[in-house]
Amino acid sequence: MGPVTLRDVAQLAGVSIATASKALNGQPQVRASTRDRVIRAAEQLNFSPNTLAQGLITQRTGTVGLLTSDLEGRFSIPILMGAEDAFGSDQTSVFLCDARGDAIREKHHLRALLSRRVDGLIVVGARPDARPSLGRDLPVPVIYAYSPSEDPADLSLVTDNVGGGRLAVDHLIRHGRRRIAHITGDATYGAAQDRATGALARLAEEGLQLAGDQVWFGSWSEAWGRSATRMLLERDPGVDAVFAGSDEIARGVLDVLHQEGLDIPQRVAVIGFDNWNILAANARPPLSTIDMNLEQLGRLAAQRLFAAIDGTLRSGASAAGASASGASASGALAPGTETVPCRLVTRESTG
Amino acid sequence: MGPVTLRDVAQLAGVSIATASKALNGQPQVRASTRDRVIRAAEQLNFSPNTLAQGLITQRTGTVGLLTSDLEGRFSIPILMGAEDAFGSDQTSVFLCDARGDAIREKHHLRALLSRRVDGLIVVGARPDARPSLGRDLPVPVIYAYSPSEDPADLSLVTDNVGGGRLAVDHLIRHGRRRIAHITGDATYGAAQDRATGALARLAEEGLQLAGDQVWFGSWSEAWGRSATRMLLERDPGVDAVFAGSDEIARGVLDVLHQEGLDIPQRVAVIGFDNWNILAANARPPLSTIDMNLEQLGRLAAQRLFAAIDGTLRSGASAAGASASGASASGALAPGTETVPCRLVTRESTG
Repeated sequence: MGPVTLRDVAQLAGVSIATASKALNGQPQVRASTRDRVIRAAEQLNFSPNTLAQGLITQRTGTVGLLTSDLEGRFSIPILMGAEDAFGSDQTSVFLCDARGDAIREKHHLRALLSRRVDGLIVVGARPDARPSLGRDLPVPVIYAYSPSEDPADLSLVTDNVGGGRLAVDHLIRHGRRRIAHITGDATYGAAQDRATGALARLAEEGLQLAGDQVWFGSWSEAWGRSATRMLLERDPGVDAVFAGSDEIARGVLDVLHQEGLDIPQRVAVIGFDNWNILAANARPPLSTIDMNLEQLGRLAAQRLFAAIDGTLRSGASAAGASASGASASGALAPGTETVPCRLVTRESTG
Repeated sequence: MGPVTLRDVAQLAGVSIATASKALNGQPQVRASTRDRVIRAAEQLNFSPNTLAQGLITQRTGTVGLLTSDLEGRFSIPILMGAEDAFGSDQTSVFLCDARGDAIREKHHLRALLSRRVDGLIVVGARPDARPSLGRDLPVPVIYAYSPSEDPADLSLVTDNVGGGRLAVDHLIRHGRRRIAHITGDATYGAAQDRATGALARLAEEGLQLAGDQVWFGSWSEAWGRSATRMLLERDPGVDAVFAGSDEIARGVLDVLHQEGLDIPQRVAVIGFDNWNILAANARPPLSTIDMNLEQLGRLAAQRLFAAIDGTLRSGASAAGASASGASASGALAPGTETVPCRLVTRESTG
């Protein structure tokens, strides 16, 4: 007696082979009662559709898990979209799970995703600083996006925040500004430091000093943008441009400049960071800003993941001893940190 | 010879039973090479772990799919959080898939989720108006949240927008306001109409008319909040309160009131809708608003889903002929539309 086939299952359940196949693959056209009957027949015959094994050995399923701790989805939703777009609208499904920066929740979601045969994982942290690795023994490749992994053996894709800071100040200089201030968020964020570093480097090239004689570190909020602008205007009333470390901060800057009757951009130009449309496009005037290209980052993450999976499959198929070699699935990813460049978005706030 | 057991698989693969079980369940502690070996052993022995069948017949897996078309995740992320919180942090995983209002993408995601054994589905539309049903023949129960289904046989959980409009105006009246205007979004949205209906009903109870003699329908943007406020102040300079149909619109209202030098809330009180923290809490002054209780809506959706699943399981276990009864899984959900009440959040903009 040969192995049990789908035909045997269909016969026992009293349905066509097509229906049996649909039922076992969880397709929506099958009634629940029919599905139950087919599954019970498969159980009786000890039939294994082996989709798990087939998926692993012969092809990818086109499904990626996105484990995020970004509470508002603000950074992870564009990464999700980019990852889905990497291979056309009906080729890839990204399942987003929200871990909320909680290790227990993250483990629970990780197990749920892995037991559901995702081809790979994208991990997005709560903030753009290094986060703990999920470890090297996972059965699928993992890419850290936006927040890099602490383990240099992992592959991380991050924003070029130094380049972004440089880009913002370069734009202001090209518009003739010479007294440029920088108001930004929490100094413990690597991204805040990096953006300031890029800004200062570009100023130095021009022989310029920061207006207000310091980087104004504070918090990522409109309220801080307002207080810092008031202090700045007191210390350096001649400031002619502000580079804000986020669009939220920039909104606070605009608000106080309006209160003080200073024309934007004639008297003071303002540029933000994030290109968060709801805040930037609707500002008065609409806000120039730096876009982190998160969709591109998501696309790149998906391409790297699928290339790693395909590479693993090929080597597994060609080398007889591959399955005993001990190389983990993520071994196919070149380790290290890749940076994705930012992009300037000009609107009316810089003229 | 009895059926193949996990012990047989473990023996052939040369691993412990625990490792074989972990490998077949996709748990992260197992090396990729070991996992391959176990899966191949299971294939050779034609072993079926039957987790699919077990999940269906004896227990839920605690996994829910959330199919959303809400591009910014603004409404679906709180629903996701509420659904996860319904049963404790490590009991439920919600997988969010972004359909972007595209029918092909939605079908693709639906298939991906169903083939991965989600226990049920929550569907969130792009806007709070009726959307097409996914149909009645799905193998798992489905709940439409935020946007109701067009099919009255489905279960939909929606915001009580009429009650929300009433709540906003009631709050303004209790603060002594008599000349209350209503500036809101796109008139083709049911939610815009419902909020206006609730506002007008509460005014009528007090014998009051709308300030400016009309509901100012427009778009869901700050820009519209600004233009409408300018027109309103021209037509009715004595207005003492504005109920804005969204927090974005409210931000535009605040902006123009500041420009005109009108004190908030002394001269004009402003209340928004959505309690979108980033806009409401950071406004100048912080914005009173109506919260749609989306987390509660998500919690309720998960509770209804799991009750339906448990009901199906119980009836399937007790009645011998249940699998032939033809009742679909979603039959266990009481059909209809349930509304979730809104909640008032007071901050400084109403005094």
